[in-house]
Amino acid sequence: MQSFEDFAAGDTHEFGAYDVTEAEVLEFAEQYDPQWFHTDPERAESESMYGGVIASGWHTTAMTMRLLVDGFLGDSAALGAKGVDELRWWKPVYPGDTLVVENEVLETTVETDSRGLVEIRTTTRAERESGEVEKVCSFVSYVMFARRDDDAE
Amino acid sequence: MQSFEDFAAGDTHEFGAYDVTEAEVLEFAEQYDPQWFHTDPERAESESMYGGVIASGWHTTAMTMRLLVDGFLGDSAALGAKGVDELRWWKPVYPGDTLVVENEVLETTVETDSRGLVEIRTTTRAERESGEVEKVCSFVSYVMFARRDDDAE
Repeated sequence: MQSFEDFAAGDTHEFGAYDVTEAEVLEFAEQYDPQWFHTDPERAESESMYGGVIASGWHTTAMTMRLLVDGFLGDSAALGAKGVDELRWWKPVYPGDTLVVENEVLETTVETDSRGLVEIRTTTRAERESGEVEKVCSFVSYVMFARRDDDAE
Repeated sequence: MQSFEDFAAGDTHEFGAYDVTEAEVLEFAEQYDPQWFHTDPERAESESMYGGVIASGWHTTAMTMRLLVDGFLGDSAALGAKGVDELRWWKPVYPGDTLVVENEVLETTVETDSRGLVEIRTTTRAERESGEVEKVCSFVSYVMFARRDDDAE
């Protein structure tokens, strides 16, 4: 299990994948982001500048989070995140895309006797049905991790 | 319907509310952020530094988005967002909280003949079951809006 001490600036790690389905894109959008270019495939295909229905940006970050938990945070002493900077949705995510995530540790800072803060850049790429691969989302997050209790070892 | 021309720096608007239920907190977390302090109420109550199960930060932004669409974006010429800066989760969101959102327009910029970019600060507050009100989340987003087609009017 990864504690704060196990992170070092420059570490990179890639994991995934997450298959994006139209049913899930519509379901998320109907609940949390019911704008027509996320919820109405027919109107989106004829009127949207994206050429079809696309995932809500918040759905993209949520799917990215699932990859982060499965591939990284789930087996760690993570305690939650304080925030995110530089969140960018570079390209739309379409039903049929497959998402893969890359993490890079930017900096680590001791916060208290029991925990530290790890600054991580996360980049999400989509592999399209066409075979093309594009960066679709990236952000820098500030994640708290418990420090190892050396006395207990 | 609000087009790009209808926004001006300094505009503020408050709307809501969104009732946070434990069932929804668990459902979102099981699908997108299955860390134990989001998915396991009993363990969270005894072991978490938050004192109980809390909503995933990405769930908080998703619920905030729903308020933004219902109170603001749904009746507008919004075309999607390019990104977000300064996303901060100031305090945890708990089941039973009621969320309210305040928007402040920071800046507007013409992007092309057909659209402009509006920089908006969104602040989410939670009204607790205790009656206390706390800022729980805030971010600055860059939202594209269609410009009004004056020829067509």
